[in-house]
Amino acid sequence: MHTSAIIVIGSEIISGRTQDLNVQFLAQKLDQRGIDLKEVRIITDDENMIIETVNALRSKYNYIFTTGGIGPTHDDITALSIAKAFNLPLIRHPEIVDLIQKRKPKTVAASYRMADVPEGSTLIGNPVTQVPGFKIENVYVFAGIPEIMQGMFASIEETLVKGLPTLTKTIHCHMGESLLADGLSTIQHKFKEVEIGSYPYQIETDWHVNVVVRSKDPKPLNAATQNIVDLIQELGGEPVQV
Amino acid sequence: MHTSAIIVIGSEIISGRTQDLNVQFLAQKLDQRGIDLKEVRIITDDENMIIETVNALRSKYNYIFTTGGIGPTHDDITALSIAKAFNLPLIRHPEIVDLIQKRKPKTVAASYRMADVPEGSTLIGNPVTQVPGFKIENVYVFAGIPEIMQGMFASIEETLVKGLPTLTKTIHCHMGESLLADGLSTIQHKFKEVEIGSYPYQIETDWHVNVVVRSKDPKPLNAATQNIVDLIQELGGEPVQV
Repeated sequence: MHTSAIIVIGSEIISGRTQDLNVQFLAQKLDQRGIDLKEVRIITDDENMIIETVNALRSKYNYIFTTGGIGPTHDDITALSIAKAFNLPLIRHPEIVDLIQKRKPKTVAASYRMADVPEGSTLIGNPVTQVPGFKIENVYVFAGIPEIMQGMFASIEETLVKGLPTLTKTIHCHMGESLLADGLSTIQHKFKEVEIGSYPYQIETDWHVNVVVRSKDPKPLNAATQNIVDLIQELGGEPVQV
Repeated sequence: MHTSAIIVIGSEIISGRTQDLNVQFLAQKLDQRGIDLKEVRIITDDENMIIETVNALRSKYNYIFTTGGIGPTHDDITALSIAKAFNLPLIRHPEIVDLIQKRKPKTVAASYRMADVPEGSTLIGNPVTQVPGFKIENVYVFAGIPEIMQGMFASIEETLVKGLPTLTKTIHCHMGESLLADGLSTIQHKFKEVEIGSYPYQIETDWHVNVVVRSKDPKPLNAATQNIVDLIQELGGEPVQV
C-alpha cells in the first residue's frame, strides 16, 4: 500500500485570498504514480497547528507532502515547525548557504533563513529559483508558489515508489443522474474492484452527467464501463466516452 | 470565539480530476462574517473517513460546513455517514419528498434518496434545484456543485453568528521579499494585533511582493500598513496599496 496526504500550509488560502492550485497538481501526479492520496489538510501558518497536523499524519501514511511557508520572511515558519514536530534542531545547511551565495552574492542576511532546515534533512532540488526544499523521514517540504512547487516535485518524483496507477474511464451522457442511479448502483455492486462516481452538471436548464469509472485492474474497468454504456443506451441516452 | 472548519467530501477532488472551488468561496464568506476558518479537510467518499472527520471536528469548532455527496446515486453517502457520526437514524424527510414530487411528479424512485437525512435535521433551502441540504447540530451539509452550494450558503448565512470581520490591507511592491524581511519582522513584533503575510510572485524574471496586513482592529491595521509603506520607500521601492 502506498498512501499519502497533503498539508497545505497557508493563511492566504484559509482567508480565501488565494485559490489553491497545488492540491490538484499533486493529486494528479500521485494518481499517475499509483500512490493513493488519502486526505488533504489546509491549515494556517500557525506553529502548533503545523506540528499537530504533521505528527497526526506522518505515522498514518507513507508520504506526506507540505506546500508553503519556506521563504525568508517572518511568516515562513514551516521549517522550524517541522523541526519541532520531529524534535530536531533547526540547522543552517551549508549547501543551501552556498547556493544562496552563488545565486546572489550581495543578498541580505534574511535570505539565509531559507537555509534553515531540520537536522538530518535531505535537500529537494529547485530548478526554478535554486533554493531547495527538504525532506525529513517521510515528510517532503515544498514551496507554496505553484511553479516552484512543481519543480521541486519533479526533482523527487522518480524517488517515490511506483504503485499500479489507477485507470480511469469517463462516460458522458445528457440526462439527469437520478435516471441512472439504480443501474449504476447495480453495476457498482457487480464490480467491487472498480469505483464508480457520478458527477452531474447543469448547462442552462439541462442536466448532464459524467460517470467516472476507476480501477487499478483494466479487466473489471472495461467490463463495468461497457455495462454503463449499455445502461445509458437502454435508458434512451447517448453515451460518449470522453 | 467563532470558529469553523470545512470538510470537502469528494473523491473527484482527491483524484485530481476536479479543481475544488468551494473552499475559496466559503473562506471568503466566513472571513467577511467574522467567523474564523481554522482548517479544511478534503477527504474521499468513504464512510469511515467521513464519520471520523466529522466527529474529530464538530466538538472542536463552532461550525462545520461539508460540501459534496448528497445526490441520488450510490456514491452519495454523506447523509448516511453523518447520521452514523451522530448515532442517529436516517429518515426520509416528508418535506423533501413533497418538494421532489412537486418539482418532478414523474421522477424515478432513486430521486427520493435525496430526501434521506439524519433524524432531527433542519433543512437548508436550495434556491437553485430546490432539493434542500440539512443541518444537524453544528454541522451544515451542502451540495458539492458550486452554484448549488452557494445558494445553500446564502439561505443560512444570516443565521450564523456575526463576529468582527477581519480587515485587510494589501501593499504591492516590485522587489524581492528578502529585502523586506527584517523590516517586516520588526513591524510584526511591534503590532501583535495584526497578522502580516508576505506573498512573493514572479513576472518573467522580476520579483514582486504583496504584503497583506490583517486585523479586526482598524487602528493597529492602519498604523502597521503605514509602517510597511514607509519601509518600502526607505528601501527605494514604490509601495502601492491594492
